[in-house]
Amino acid sequence: MPKIYLALIHYPVINKSGDIIASAVTNLDLHDISRAAKTYGVKAFYVVTPLADQIAIAKRIIDHWTSGAGARYNPTRRSALELIQIKESFAEVSNHIRSIEKTCPKTVVTCAKKYPSRISSEKLRGRLGDGKPHLLVFGTGWGLTEETITEADYILEPVAGNTNYNHLSVRSAAAIILDRLLGPRN
Amino acid sequence: MPKIYLALIHYPVINKSGDIIASAVTNLDLHDISRAAKTYGVKAFYVVTPLADQIAIAKRIIDHWTSGAGARYNPTRRSALELIQIKESFAEVSNHIRSIEKTCPKTVVTCAKKYPSRISSEKLRGRLGDGKPHLLVFGTGWGLTEETITEADYILEPVAGNTNYNHLSVRSAAAIILDRLLGPRN
Repeated sequence: MPKIYLALIHYPVINKSGDIIASAVTNLDLHDISRAAKTYGVKAFYVVTPLADQIAIAKRIIDHWTSGAGARYNPTRRSALELIQIKESFAEVSNHIRSIEKTCPKTVVTCAKKYPSRISSEKLRGRLGDGKPHLLVFGTGWGLTEETITEADYILEPVAGNTNYNHLSVRSAAAIILDRLLGPRN
Repeated sequence: MPKIYLALIHYPVINKSGDIIASAVTNLDLHDISRAAKTYGVKAFYVVTPLADQIAIAKRIIDHWTSGAGARYNPTRRSALELIQIKESFAEVSNHIRSIEKTCPKTVVTCAKKYPSRISSEKLRGRLGDGKPHLLVFGTGWGLTEETITEADYILEPVAGNTNYNHLSVRSAAAIILDRLLGPRN
């Protein structure tokens, strides 16, 4: 089983005008992406924000479903949200994975733009079985910053459907990418 | 291009105890599923509910993004939400498609349970190119009723990842199923 980690970045990300901002934590990002992560055997799902109020919101959501009333009401939701770790920065995420795996993860960034150096899902799928940990990085807002993208080990090709429209939510993109990289093949 | 329609059912669906209920419309279902539908060339996305207050909520969301301030702020969101049609029942959806296509659509239901008569995504993918309209049906809450499922032309196999966990959100399941049925193949 490939050692896959996932991170959802709330800072630094881009807004509609291209400025670098910190975005707000979205309740359904935590639910949908943790459930997809659990479905595809992801080892941890990092929610990255340095903002104290956003950390508090994320903690309250997670606590409700992992140890509060939600955990008793819906145990399958509990086991998904237990994958979530809140971290203040990308560096903290890398350090955490290194402390578990004793090696740095290969980083894979996702974005809606076609970079010349992008890797296809099919090719990346082949490399995930090499025993090394891989960290899939998703941006909120209008996406990851240019710096985050160009510093990664891999830039994954954007998810294309069968039209020119490429404006999926991060929740849908994460689900499709996990399926393309880790889903069953006939 | 296959003639695919999509319906999200809010009544009749099942709750946690197996009772037949009408579920509430969820804002992000409309956004995420319409964006995924637009990405994969779906011809219309039907939001099905007979409840007057839920119809009003859905209309308000759609109007905001298709003719209100949201349409100017985010035209790509507009073109996705323009795919949405509100209908009061499954029968109304079928009638609407028949009025467009001059033939009844083949119905494909999705569910998390493995029915013996299920069809694989790969097999269904092959049939979508036969020129006939197909209607993909998703349930909210704890899923579609037994009656809706057994009356369909096809029961699609549940989305399996690479673990035993099968509790995706309907938003994630819809995204993955559209990609498996209509996404590019290498």
